[in-house]
Amino acid sequence: MSTFVVVGGDAAGMSAASKAKRDDPDLEVVVFERGEWVSYGACGLPYYVKGEIQSLEELVSVTPEEFREERGIDLRTGHEVVAIDPDERTVTAEGDGRTVQESYDHLLIATGAAAVTPPIEGIDREGVYTLGSMSDGAELREYVARARSDGQLRQPDSGPACQFLEECAGPVAVVGGGYIGVEMAEALAANGFEVHLFQRGDRILNGFSEATSERVTAHLRERDVAVYLGSEVEALAGDDAVEAVVTAGERVPAEMVLVGTGVRPRTALAEAAGIELGETGAIAADAYRETSEPDVYAAGDCAEAEHVVTGEPAYVPLALTANRHGRAVGATVAGTPTAAGAIAGTAAVKAFDVEAARTGLTDHDAAREAGFEPVTETIDAKSRAGYYPEGGTVRVTLTADRGSGRVLGGDLVSEYGEGAVHRSHALVGAVTEGVSVGELSNYDLAYAPPFNTTWDPVLTAAKVLEGRL
Amino acid sequence: MSTFVVVGGDAAGMSAASKAKRDDPDLEVVVFERGEWVSYGACGLPYYVKGEIQSLEELVSVTPEEFREERGIDLRTGHEVVAIDPDERTVTAEGDGRTVQESYDHLLIATGAAAVTPPIEGIDREGVYTLGSMSDGAELREYVARARSDGQLRQPDSGPACQFLEECAGPVAVVGGGYIGVEMAEALAANGFEVHLFQRGDRILNGFSEATSERVTAHLRERDVAVYLGSEVEALAGDDAVEAVVTAGERVPAEMVLVGTGVRPRTALAEAAGIELGETGAIAADAYRETSEPDVYAAGDCAEAEHVVTGEPAYVPLALTANRHGRAVGATVAGTPTAAGAIAGTAAVKAFDVEAARTGLTDHDAAREAGFEPVTETIDAKSRAGYYPEGGTVRVTLTADRGSGRVLGGDLVSEYGEGAVHRSHALVGAVTEGVSVGELSNYDLAYAPPFNTTWDPVLTAAKVLEGRL
Repeated sequence: MSTFVVVGGDAAGMSAASKAKRDDPDLEVVVFERGEWVSYGACGLPYYVKGEIQSLEELVSVTPEEFREERGIDLRTGHEVVAIDPDERTVTAEGDGRTVQESYDHLLIATGAAAVTPPIEGIDREGVYTLGSMSDGAELREYVARARSDGQLRQPDSGPACQFLEECAGPVAVVGGGYIGVEMAEALAANGFEVHLFQRGDRILNGFSEATSERVTAHLRERDVAVYLGSEVEALAGDDAVEAVVTAGERVPAEMVLVGTGVRPRTALAEAAGIELGETGAIAADAYRETSEPDVYAAGDCAEAEHVVTGEPAYVPLALTANRHGRAVGATVAGTPTAAGAIAGTAAVKAFDVEAARTGLTDHDAAREAGFEPVTETIDAKSRAGYYPEGGTVRVTLTADRGSGRVLGGDLVSEYGEGAVHRSHALVGAVTEGVSVGELSNYDLAYAPPFNTTWDPVLTAAKVLEGRL
Repeated sequence: MSTFVVVGGDAAGMSAASKAKRDDPDLEVVVFERGEWVSYGACGLPYYVKGEIQSLEELVSVTPEEFREERGIDLRTGHEVVAIDPDERTVTAEGDGRTVQESYDHLLIATGAAAVTPPIEGIDREGVYTLGSMSDGAELREYVARARSDGQLRQPDSGPACQFLEECAGPVAVVGGGYIGVEMAEALAANGFEVHLFQRGDRILNGFSEATSERVTAHLRERDVAVYLGSEVEALAGDDAVEAVVTAGERVPAEMVLVGTGVRPRTALAEAAGIELGETGAIAADAYRETSEPDVYAAGDCAEAEHVVTGEPAYVPLALTANRHGRAVGATVAGTPTAAGAIAGTAAVKAFDVEAARTGLTDHDAAREAGFEPVTETIDAKSRAGYYPEGGTVRVTLTADRGSGRVLGGDLVSEYGEGAVHRSHALVGAVTEGVSVGELSNYDLAYAPPFNTTWDPVLTAAKVLEGRL
């Protein structure tokens, strides 16, 4: 009997374990997870902190008991793998006060990513949080609940901004304007906090176009979030507890600070075992997610993946890739070699009443490095027929290669519910298939007055960009 | 100076005229339109009848004055073209009590389609309407307004069904369960009418999958529309005015009947000029929309188009195709030969609180005729993350070729606002590019909890169908 050992019990790990066991029930599948939570939707944590989700259990798609009893997986929570020996084909794990060794025929490293804690003075003070794990989510929710029960807060969503600051709960700060930063700004503001968001660079949502960043920034400000751009945080000042965020130019009081400055792949275990990392710093793996060591795979937030446009490795740690690549490894291990598929760097975010999605290669420097001559165009278009009683504006930014016309990437932003995210499905296909803007502009996309203008905004953007090439 | 003559001033005609004049300002562009309205959104008429749009003018995207004064187009409304002479390169038109002849270098036939009036006894009675033109829309709106001012109607959207029929406005009937039938059922029910919908076939929305038809039918019934399936209308009974709809098995009272049994291409003018029709009965045209006569083009609802999956001619008269093909003809006529692009038969519809879209080749007989071995699978999936506080169900039906795995077509249906229509953009790309279900299932589609599950329903459907091939 063959043994498949998985290190890490979240999206990639449990997808692989489940798929492998389902496809080959004779396979022995052992999963080591150092925490107690498995297979949870970390993407839901901001909504838990916000109060839209009532318990952490709701974020768990399959419980440990179900994995064990219904799926026949030997899931060992509370066990941390401390060493991998690729020559002996063993892993060493510690748990329940003991050290165990397990042999494997196939091994998956799915150790995920850790929140980056930047070297800011005072980052260890009380009241400074990150949001990477379920326990982080629990702590933040407790903080919010405490502030609310102290009666400090204005009613959620009661805006406009707290007019009499001395009556309000202490201001809070978010450091970092990525997905987590933006989602947490919403979660905190919705609970009545006065929120200050600090972004080191000159715009939030770096992976998006400037046009989209601007629209989201304007909306955050409309919703009374104070957004500081080009504002590197130098210190989190205070005694034991944090009291203020200090930048080069300002000192902004804050009773709580959420640091959301990105994640880095957890690679220490793989490195110690002599497994190669890629240029991105994440674990290198081939199309089947096999690493430099035979029968050792890596998937999810600890690994790089092939970018669909450049064909080069990229590090974009997101949930769908983890699920999809984990599943492919499971199929491969169970006997059907399955390529995991490339990534397009697609991502979506909701911020209050706007939604946005991006995909592909949009950064001009990166595009030029990959041999393209990028041209970008932004259009604003009605989200529904002009005469239809509802509707808003979809902003589409599209980047193509001047020579070939190939769609390299793009993004969309609209009011929440006006379809920026789902419409981006059209761009993902175009980016993946290497379609030109001319071809895209001829797509027979669905039209009816409640859903778009006769030319969907995606088509209009393609037409306009085609005219610019 | 070269002259471009256009017959018909709606979507295809005015798109062509505008594009040609913009690309080549030296071109003389003459448009003959027999009515007074040009460039209007007929797709909006149901919403005008419903009362969500307040004036017919709102449906007009560009006015005749703007075409004449700002775009430099010689637009002659109230002029009907009665003959085309391809040998002499002239058209003969009647208007203002005179007959005029105009020479052309390029000619576009954009005569559109007419509502089919099936051979039903009594179809000429008072109170029987179709919905093809602006004047049809005006008449229907007047009917609704009259009934409402008579105080006959319950409050719009006050549902449930009229409990005491003697107090209600007369019941009304819709004959035909296509887009117009379904949209008009909503428009009439929202105005307080008791609506009876008759469909000859065994399900409504023929072009959609059975799974989608069933869901929409169930929803219409939830909203108190009486849906009669497999119910061919034999007569519209009454004296002068219609009083009842008579089928083989029933006689259902109706004070008004809307007949929405499809459209047929207006081809008489082309036929009389010796221009070839295709097998579909619409005007045949090549990739540039040129007909059997040199320099005579046909576009929009009067013409067939190439189907993106079969490569064969198909007749799918819809707004985007008319706009797109008209625009391509305009570019060609102005000196840049521009292929008009194939169609995928994509269509979208809203019915009360559900939305649906379809694309591609989904009919099994047609697929087999085109040399495929079709396999179809339907899945129901959550529209958002399971833990997210809002959300519903997206039903995806996908058809692929067993041998190649190629996605041939599919449809989606969801609650209104849950994204069935915009998500269909992913299928349009897959159908257009000849992508396999395995490739589609690996698409890096945008994900965030407010918009989908980690695997968007489209991906789940592709995965499930791949497993069936």
